[in-house]
Amino acid sequence: MEVSFEHLLRTNPVLRIYLFYTAVLALKMMLMTLLTIRQRFLNNAFVCEEDAVFLRGVVSRTNENVERVRRGHRNDMETIYLFLLTGFAYIWTNPDPAWTNSLFLLFTVGRFIHTFVYTIVVTPQPARGLSWLVGYVIMGYMALKTLIYFYN
Amino acid sequence: MEVSFEHLLRTNPVLRIYLFYTAVLALKMMLMTLLTIRQRFLNNAFVCEEDAVFLRGVVSRTNENVERVRRGHRNDMETIYLFLLTGFAYIWTNPDPAWTNSLFLLFTVGRFIHTFVYTIVVTPQPARGLSWLVGYVIMGYMALKTLIYFYN
Amino acid sequence: MEVSFEHLLRTNPVLRIYLFYTAVLALKMMLMTLLTIRQRFLNNAFVCEEDAVFLRGVVSRTNENVERVRRGHRNDMETIYLFLLTGFAYIWTNPDPAWTNSLFLLFTVGRFIHTFVYTIVVTPQPARGLSWLVGYVIMGYMALKTLIYFYN
Repeated sequence: MEVSFEHLLRTNPVLRIYLFYTAVLALKMMLMTLLTIRQRFLNNAFVCEEDAVFLRGVVSRTNENVERVRRGHRNDMETIYLFLLTGFAYIWTNPDPAWTNSLFLLFTVGRFIHTFVYTIVVTPQPARGLSWLVGYVIMGYMALKTLIYFYN
Repeated sequence: MEVSFEHLLRTNPVLRIYLFYTAVLALKMMLMTLLTIRQRFLNNAFVCEEDAVFLRGVVSRTNENVERVRRGHRNDMETIYLFLLTGFAYIWTNPDPAWTNSLFLLFTVGRFIHTFVYTIVVTPQPARGLSWLVGYVIMGYMALKTLIYFYN
Repeated sequence: MEVSFEHLLRTNPVLRIYLFYTAVLALKMMLMTLLTIRQRFLNNAFVCEEDAVFLRGVVSRTNENVERVRRGHRNDMETIYLFLLTGFAYIWTNPDPAWTNSLFLLFTVGRFIHTFVYTIVVTPQPARGLSWLVGYVIMGYMALKTLIYFYN
């Protein structure tokens, strides 16, 4: 018997949703590296000796503009990676495709807002807190639903 | 031909094990964020200016109670993420389901103990070292077995 | 109908490639922890009080040799985790197996070089920058191709 990936994709629309948002969120996280590099050049704050020599700049690990982007990047690692691992488990719980798509879309929008208010146009709280909370609640819902579904 | 996720789950019990522990470990990692927030409030040590303003607190990035939880969270990222990616590969190597379940369970217990002795009731070494080692050895075994299985 | 994992592996050779490189990259990342531990002992720089007491050493979080390995490890988390999540999505876009294998191999080689020039034999730039760029470009290509493939 032959079971190609196309068969699985056709029969399980939530898989297609998962793979699409994986690509979107991967590109969003790759952007964080570019934002960090940009701040390192703008603030002349490079991370180690060989970089400073090569670029005729200065080593600094305490520049607030750089560290802010790095904290945003770490927050993405704490949140987006966990969401993609959890989301993969969630799609096996037989969820409604339209509902699943809404959850993935809302999570993604929340993360873009989080990065914007944290690292691009620094915005007073609770902007960052709320954008973070959206993703946290969605992820918690998915993890709990998966836990209950497979606990037998 | 229709190949739904239910068919795959029924025919491959190790998949169900993987998805269940993904949910457990995701909830465990989400807890780390709550533990960090708790320490930030208990120690009045917030991570950036806009948080301190909003909460009428102080910015501090060197509070040991906060940093301890953050190190535990980073250790989870170094360990649990890698375990879930490796564990997904491992379940394709045709392992015995009961054995696989034991490995996933033991890894998970090890990580809960790691967090407890590192960030909740600070315990002398080698408590943290041993709880970390359990997970490291299980992960190494899975990665090696997968490497050998697919090396052809 | 029975759909075992063996059927899927036989019909989709790119899956086998993905699982093999997951194991290789997992072992490579596990190495980072050993490199960190080695530098902590060589430089007598332990991360917290209970470790220093147990090992009769000193607490230090600013030793450059240790921090260099930790930055390398973090860069792996920013890069390899995202690559494995993106790579999983990419293999569903019906890519050529030989081409896919080349991309995974090249990414992996790039990451080994990155670790070598960053943390084992410290090498002037642009060695680290170029080895990092290889992985970044491959990952970006995969994410973009996946985005376009599933955007309908």
